[in-house]
Amino acid sequence: MPSKTTLKDLANLAGVSVSTVSKALNDSPEIGARTRQRIKDIAESCNYVPNNIARSLKSRSTKTIGVIIPAILIEFFNKVLYGIEQEATERGYKIVICLSNESSRKEAESINTFINGSVDGVILSVAEETQKSKVYDHFEKSAKHNMPMVMFDRVLDDITCDKVTVDDFEGAFNAVKFLSDLGSKNILFLNPISNTSVGQHREDGYVKAVSGLNQEPNIVNVSHYTEIEKALSTVFNNQKIDAILAADEYSAALAQNAARLNNLKIPQDLSVIGFTNGMVAEYANPSLTVVSQHAENIGKIAAGILLDRIEGKLRAEPVNKVVKTKIVERNSTKNI
Amino acid sequence: MPSKTTLKDLANLAGVSVSTVSKALNDSPEIGARTRQRIKDIAESCNYVPNNIARSLKSRSTKTIGVIIPAILIEFFNKVLYGIEQEATERGYKIVICLSNESSRKEAESINTFINGSVDGVILSVAEETQKSKVYDHFEKSAKHNMPMVMFDRVLDDITCDKVTVDDFEGAFNAVKFLSDLGSKNILFLNPISNTSVGQHREDGYVKAVSGLNQEPNIVNVSHYTEIEKALSTVFNNQKIDAILAADEYSAALAQNAARLNNLKIPQDLSVIGFTNGMVAEYANPSLTVVSQHAENIGKIAAGILLDRIEGKLRAEPVNKVVKTKIVERNSTKNI
Repeated sequence: MPSKTTLKDLANLAGVSVSTVSKALNDSPEIGARTRQRIKDIAESCNYVPNNIARSLKSRSTKTIGVIIPAILIEFFNKVLYGIEQEATERGYKIVICLSNESSRKEAESINTFINGSVDGVILSVAEETQKSKVYDHFEKSAKHNMPMVMFDRVLDDITCDKVTVDDFEGAFNAVKFLSDLGSKNILFLNPISNTSVGQHREDGYVKAVSGLNQEPNIVNVSHYTEIEKALSTVFNNQKIDAILAADEYSAALAQNAARLNNLKIPQDLSVIGFTNGMVAEYANPSLTVVSQHAENIGKIAAGILLDRIEGKLRAEPVNKVVKTKIVERNSTKNI
Repeated sequence: MPSKTTLKDLANLAGVSVSTVSKALNDSPEIGARTRQRIKDIAESCNYVPNNIARSLKSRSTKTIGVIIPAILIEFFNKVLYGIEQEATERGYKIVICLSNESSRKEAESINTFINGSVDGVILSVAEETQKSKVYDHFEKSAKHNMPMVMFDRVLDDITCDKVTVDDFEGAFNAVKFLSDLGSKNILFLNPISNTSVGQHREDGYVKAVSGLNQEPNIVNVSHYTEIEKALSTVFNNQKIDAILAADEYSAALAQNAARLNNLKIPQDLSVIGFTNGMVAEYANPSLTVVSQHAENIGKIAAGILLDRIEGKLRAEPVNKVVKTKIVERNSTKNI
């Protein structure tokens, strides 16, 4: 067990009051120079470290921001964290990170830890369980405590705070237009995340775009990545498809593998675009054209808004920032 | 700015001393029932939250462990974090994460934050800058404070604490043996991380293994991933290579792409094995056979040791746990 020396321990050792110790360590002129030195010597010999929080309660600022992400194994969140860290460092703040692991209880625990005075504000993406249950007590509590808070990507309409989101609808819409401009006439939408709001927005954007092109929407929903190969093989055997838009990069990579098994050449016979610009897209063969959400930039923007809020640089009304997606062209789509 | 109510604020409002407020909120019988209730009512109306740290100084336990990782965009560390989180949750502990971003200063700042009473112990992998500079003041300080500490993967011989490492030498040695058993006679080692201790251990294991097979070591060092395609094309044009062992999964995936460009079929003409079992290996085409370091398991083991240490279940001498690697066979190596 770590044995941490407290002010009280020092007071006992020095035979003075806690308040005298505190004043001495803070160089208060109320305490005589000799006593001050004696107390400092005792503190040093005990390896005394002033308590961060006790200090921060004085200045009411910790120069630290808390971040809560739903999952550590999703590259998108890691890239957002990277962006938050960059911006925070730039502006002289530290970050501490908690994981909710998609659990409401853990999310609430983390919020509580942060409210208890250890950070100046919080950035978070809402846990899946919270989105489903619609129980927002912990967020209402943090609002009551006037804790500055920025939600990103997965946000709650019912909670008033600053928000940074991605235009998933427009991202999918633009990807279809991109494929159509390359000459694709039968564009399939492959969706392994149709049960999430993000997956739904992407599907809506796809439907809107193909309808505008007078194509019938052609959607393959799968509940697990392992189903993709079989589902697409059936499609390839029965329909003439010349492009696939996949709702994430993993399904895009697996669509490429399924195409190869069915003797379709990419991009000559089939173009493929996936959502999110991660390592799988970069190292896929051929490398994948993707709809990038600028994850790192989302992190920078969220941190920038939070710090502006903390530092009193924003007006009272909440900020709602929508980050535009961009198509990053690689080798899985035809070059005309 | 968050406006946090302090004990002192409550004391002023109630017209009593800080000590009376504290005792009342902790249901001390020293304070009369009516006064207790009055103070609790004031605390509630002010949204007062008891300070975590002040509480923990009483029990000397926060049920929280701190983790410091050098980089958030390296999947290995994310998987270790995942394992730490699993084990900590299992045993009733929370985790808070800081990033050192390979910087000694940030690493020291994080250690200081943790020493200041917010966690019961620390798990970390050492920042590159610290490994180079060999300046370990912050670790010596945490040792002085009897802060339980577990280092994983990148550890320091000069610091006495519990350690969890991977047997990189043996991992490379076994991978060469695996390739040789498949019939490979000309095994090349592709190393994009020769400037790290980990990359060096893997190279040493490779050299030892091929020497035992009476093959000449054939090592291609690259300083950047973009050099791989050109470097390997030169090799393919001038030498007969039938297998590549790559020091990480990214270089393994790029080696596959280079082979395809040179009309080599995988695994018929060339077998490829990479280190680390991540998403790139899983989604590569063909999927990659890898040397897995069991990253998630490393996290679980490190957290288990730390919690045993915190809970006084270990003897004084430090634990040194070496995690064995394992070959995960996929489609980039011949099946005989």
